Amino acid sequence: MAGLGEFELIRQYFAAAACATPVSGVARGIGDDCALLQLRPGEQLAVSTDTQVAGVHFPEHHDPFLLAQRVLAAAASDLAAMGAAPLGFTLALTLPNAEPAWLAGFARGLDVMARACQLALIGGDTTRGPLNINVTVFGRLPVGQALLRSGARPGDLLCLGGTTGEAAAALPLVLGERAASGAGDAELLARYWTPQPQLLLGQALRGLASAALDVSDGLLADCGHIAEQSGVALLIEAARLPLAAALREAAGARALHLALTGGDDYVLAFSLPPAALPTLQATGQPFHLIGRVAAGSGVRVLDRDGHDITPAAGGYQHFGGGDGQT
Amino acid sequence: MAGLGEFELIRQYFAAAACATPVSGVARGIGDDCALLQLRPGEQLAVSTDTQVAGVHFPEHHDPFLLAQRVLAAAASDLAAMGAAPLGFTLALTLPNAEPAWLAGFARGLDVMARACQLALIGGDTTRGPLNINVTVFGRLPVGQALLRSGARPGDLLCLGGTTGEAAAALPLVLGERAASGAGDAELLARYWTPQPQLLLGQALRGLASAALDVSDGLLADCGHIAEQSGVALLIEAARLPLAAALREAAGARALHLALTGGDDYVLAFSLPPAALPTLQATGQPFHLIGRVAAGSGVRVLDRDGHDITPAAGGYQHFGGGDGQT
Repeated sequence: MAGLGEFELIRQYFAAAACATPVSGVARGIGDDCALLQLRPGEQLAVSTDTQVAGVHFPEHHDPFLLAQRVLAAAASDLAAMGAAPLGFTLALTLPNAEPAWLAGFARGLDVMARACQLALIGGDTTRGPLNINVTVFGRLPVGQALLRSGARPGDLLCLGGTTGEAAAALPLVLGERAASGAGDAELLARYWTPQPQLLLGQALRGLASAALDVSDGLLADCGHIAEQSGVALLIEAARLPLAAALREAAGARALHLALTGGDDYVLAFSLPPAALPTLQATGQPFHLIGRVAAGSGVRVLDRDGHDITPAAGGYQHFGGGDGQT
Repeated sequence: MAGLGEFELIRQYFAAAACATPVSGVARGIGDDCALLQLRPGEQLAVSTDTQVAGVHFPEHHDPFLLAQRVLAAAASDLAAMGAAPLGFTLALTLPNAEPAWLAGFARGLDVMARACQLALIGGDTTRGPLNINVTVFGRLPVGQALLRSGARPGDLLCLGGTTGEAAAALPLVLGERAASGAGDAELLARYWTPQPQLLLGQALRGLASAALDVSDGLLADCGHIAEQSGVALLIEAARLPLAAALREAAGARALHLALTGGDDYVLAFSLPPAALPTLQATGQPFHLIGRVAAGSGVRVLDRDGHDITPAAGGYQHFGGGDGQT
C-alpha cells in the first residue's frame, strides 16, 4: 500500500503485541481482510465495543503507556461482566499524527494489559484525525452461561468484587488540580490508569451469580441497571460498603459518596442466591457482601438503622461529557 | 443511567435498526455488557473493524443518510472479501453533539444498508467528541473456506467483481468542486455514497477462488497485496478492464488511470484457477476476467501488444489523509 507513509509504520508498533499473545481460538489474526475466530463446540462469542476520546474519557495530556492499559482494561471489563473467558481484541486508532514516542509508549502499554488479560490483538485500523481509541473485545462462554443483568431475584445477596470510588478520587490528580504525594495517591492513580478487569471472578460466577455487570458509571447507577432489568429493588447497606484507606484519606467525609457515585471502577457487582455463597467463597475469588435484593424497584442505600440515605441520582459523566453504551 | 441526557436518546434512534434485522446467530444483541454470537458447528467467525473520520474519509458537510450507508458498506465489504456470510455489526459513534436531524438520517441510512447486507446491529457505544464512526462487522464461514490473499498461483485467472474508478471520479462532485448534472454523475455519486458490498459473490467464490480481497485503496495497490502475500506477479490487461460509461464521460482520457488507482470501489478482486471458471459462471454472479497470475512479483498493466503501461505507484489516500488497516 505505497503512499500510506507514516500510518503504515504504525502497524509495526503493534505487530509485537499481536504476536506476543498467542491465544487458542484465533485462527487468523492481523494481515487479511478479516480476522478469523474459532470457538469450541458448545461455546458462544461475547462481543463488546468501547470508545475513549481525548478530553472526554482521559486528559489531552496523558502518558500513552498508561492510557493504552486503561482503554484495553475498560473494554475487557465488559467480558468479565458476562463471565466470558478472554480471546482477543481489535484496535481502531484515530491519531492526529504518528508520533514515535507516543506510539511506542501506547504499544508497550497495550502489550502489558493484553498479556495480563490474555487477549490477543487480532486486527485493527489506523486513521488520521482527532485522538479517538476504539477497542472491541471478544471472549468465549459456554452456551447459556452468560452473566446477564436480568436474573436477580428477591432474597439474593448483593455483592461487589472490590472497592469503588478510588478512580473518582484520583480525578484531581489526573487533571493536575492537585499534586500526588504518598502511597495513597499512587494507589488512586493506579486505580484510574490501570484498572484490573476481574476476568477470573467473572468466570467463577458462571452458574452461581443470578445477575452481574461491571461498575463503570458509578455503583448506584450501574446497580440501577440490574434493578431495572431484573425487576427488583437493590438495597445497599452503607456500613458494608468497602472503602479503601486511600479513598478515606483523600476524600474524607466524601468517601462514601464517591464509592457510591464515582465511576471508572471496573469491579463487578452481582447478585448471588444465598445457597451459592459457600461455593463462591471456596473459589478464593475476592468479593464483599454489600446488601441484598428485595421485591420492588430501584436502588436504595441504607444506614445501620435501616434509614434511606440514598444520595441524589446522577450517573458518572467522566470529566468532559456524556456517553452511553448500548 | 440518569444524567447521560441526550446521549441516552441516541440509543432510541438505533433501536429500530437493531430490532429490524433479526439474524440467526445473534443470541443476544444490545442491552447487556456484551452481545452474544453463536456459530453453527464447523463455522468460524470473521471480524473486521473500520473507522471513518470527518474530513478524512468523507466531507465535513455530508448527508448523514448516505454517510451511514457508506460506512457500513465499506466495513461489510471486508466480509465479502473473505467469503463470509453476514451476521452482525457493532457501531461506535463519536459525535460532537446529538443533533436530531443528523441522528435520524444516519439511523435511517444504517437501517437501509443493514437490511441490504443482512447485518444485525448487535451493540455499540456513543461518545461525545469530533465525528468518528467505527463499525466492526461479523460474519460466518465454514472452517477452512475463508478467501485469503495468499493463495494465488501462476496460471490462475485474475478477475474483478465490477467496475472501478467511479468513486474516485465522484470526488469533485462530493467535494462540491463541480455540480452534478445528468444520469452519469448520479451514478458516480451512488458508487461513492452507497457502495454495494459483494457478499453473494464472496460466498460464491468459496472453494473456487485461490485468493481474494476487496478493492478499497485502488485496484493496483490492492492487487499488490495479493501479489505480495501469494508470492506471484499479477498481470492486468488494460483492454479487458471494464470502464463504466459514466467514468469515461466524466474522466475522459483519465478513465483508465482512475480505474487502476482510484479508491473506495468496494468490488472484489480475485484469482481463479481456470478449471473453476465454468462453475463460477454457472452461479450467475457478475465478474470480469481482467488478466492473469504469473510467476514473479508485483503488479503490471499491459496494453494489447503486451507492453508495460503500469502507472507510477500510489495508494489511494482518500482526500484528506492516510490510513492503514491491519
